[in-house]
Amino acid sequence: MDMIGVSRAFAVEQVRSGVTTPATRIVPEEVPIAFSYGGTTHAVMMATPADLEDFAVGFSLAEGIIERAEQVVSIEAIEAGPGIDLQITLEDNTADALVARRRRMAGPVGCGLCGIESIEQAARPVPVVPRSEVRFREGDIIEAMQALGAGQVLNRETRAVHGAGFFLPGEGLLALREDVGRHNALDKLVGAVCRAGWKRSRGMVVVTSRLSVEMVQKAAILGSPLLAAISAPTALAIRTAEEAGLTLVGIARGNDFEVFTRSDRINGGERSHVA
Amino acid sequence: MDMIGVSRAFAVEQVRSGVTTPATRIVPEEVPIAFSYGGTTHAVMMATPADLEDFAVGFSLAEGIIERAEQVVSIEAIEAGPGIDLQITLEDNTADALVARRRRMAGPVGCGLCGIESIEQAARPVPVVPRSEVRFREGDIIEAMQALGAGQVLNRETRAVHGAGFFLPGEGLLALREDVGRHNALDKLVGAVCRAGWKRSRGMVVVTSRLSVEMVQKAAILGSPLLAAISAPTALAIRTAEEAGLTLVGIARGNDFEVFTRSDRINGGERSHVA
Repeated sequence: MDMIGVSRAFAVEQVRSGVTTPATRIVPEEVPIAFSYGGTTHAVMMATPADLEDFAVGFSLAEGIIERAEQVVSIEAIEAGPGIDLQITLEDNTADALVARRRRMAGPVGCGLCGIESIEQAARPVPVVPRSEVRFREGDIIEAMQALGAGQVLNRETRAVHGAGFFLPGEGLLALREDVGRHNALDKLVGAVCRAGWKRSRGMVVVTSRLSVEMVQKAAILGSPLLAAISAPTALAIRTAEEAGLTLVGIARGNDFEVFTRSDRINGGERSHVA
Repeated sequence: MDMIGVSRAFAVEQVRSGVTTPATRIVPEEVPIAFSYGGTTHAVMMATPADLEDFAVGFSLAEGIIERAEQVVSIEAIEAGPGIDLQITLEDNTADALVARRRRMAGPVGCGLCGIESIEQAARPVPVVPRSEVRFREGDIIEAMQALGAGQVLNRETRAVHGAGFFLPGEGLLALREDVGRHNALDKLVGAVCRAGWKRSRGMVVVTSRLSVEMVQKAAILGSPLLAAISAPTALAIRTAEEAGLTLVGIARGNDFEVFTRSDRINGGERSHVA
């Protein structure tokens, strides 16, 4: 279904300490991708044209259009000018709910946060992560972040895309999705995990980006109890993670990381407290 | 006008090679900011609550609501729940144009690309950079990127925000704006440059992020002939820069960078070609 390449080589002039050399640089592709339901376009995102079925399901979940991956009956990707139109067919009763929702919104919503119409909508309540006794070891977080870095095929080629992965302790990194946009990478991962039917409540989500509030919202919608990132969270992301009961880990590099919320989920006996 | 703090300290558990220590981490604030014209909210963005006048003017320019900074008559920032409502008053005739545009769009547009309604809108034509004989030296680019890194006050504190700067050869980095979002940082910079009335056609824009297509569009709207970034561009950003006649520089680190388009604008006698 991926019709347009995910990367492309360009001729560049490489300047190194004052010396110019012609060279080739591979960069990621970025195209407009439309999400259409019942023939009507709901939103258009700029994204890497790969893993489009995952993207369609993950976006539909993140936007609240569906509640389960099975509500998507079919996805057809159609080349449309410079972009791709994802024609998504929903179960009959889901489609009715979408029409009602569209009427309420009176406009497209985009990435789930920008493009919205009021401050109240931006501060929408976040789902609370299901209660469970699941615990992660520090080593799980370190292993998951390493696997994420090692598995990023498109980023190895371009050094310019984000990655999002799903890690199940004892089983490893089960899925990894890449995109020029960090929200898109996470939407694709959410779609992949829900389509595969893995135990969301026992796994962690790991991402290569910073943690703005929408990243926390998407992880909470997935129902994973832990979200870890290479970079730092925003203040609103931390407050939202607290509300959602999500364990938020940031600045995860090498053997080091920082726990911003719900650190009680991280232990395994070998942890030693100082101070 | 900046009512909510731009950063906030949180208690964290710092894990360093298996040893856990309580610590404090300063992270950037992120709040919903509404852009309202004539009392009607046009879009809501998640952003760092600083430089709001610049943001209002830059966003209005990027969205095509105004063509000149002077068309904004007044900006009032009102605390609204968890966010800030920017009440923007336009010149009378501009306000009429906005109403007509809103009717055409039939919905909010958000960051200028996501939230739009069709693939055609996403691939909208980009303004062509005004023809001029302006040339930049390699040293200008290196100096501008260094000044950008050195000047990022909020990033020094949080290590989690993007920066956008305007550099005029011979005069230095005249403006620098920071935000959790790279589009917002550039919108704020565009607003600051237009409000100050600096020679846009003689300066370059430098940013700390990757170059997705909207970054190129915003630089072209500003009318600066060169856009340089620490990280890489997407394929669409390169194609759009070619269309706009913009010089696109990426992967600018230390004394090195790569030129993707219109390298003829970069020279200064001391440049030596190899191969």
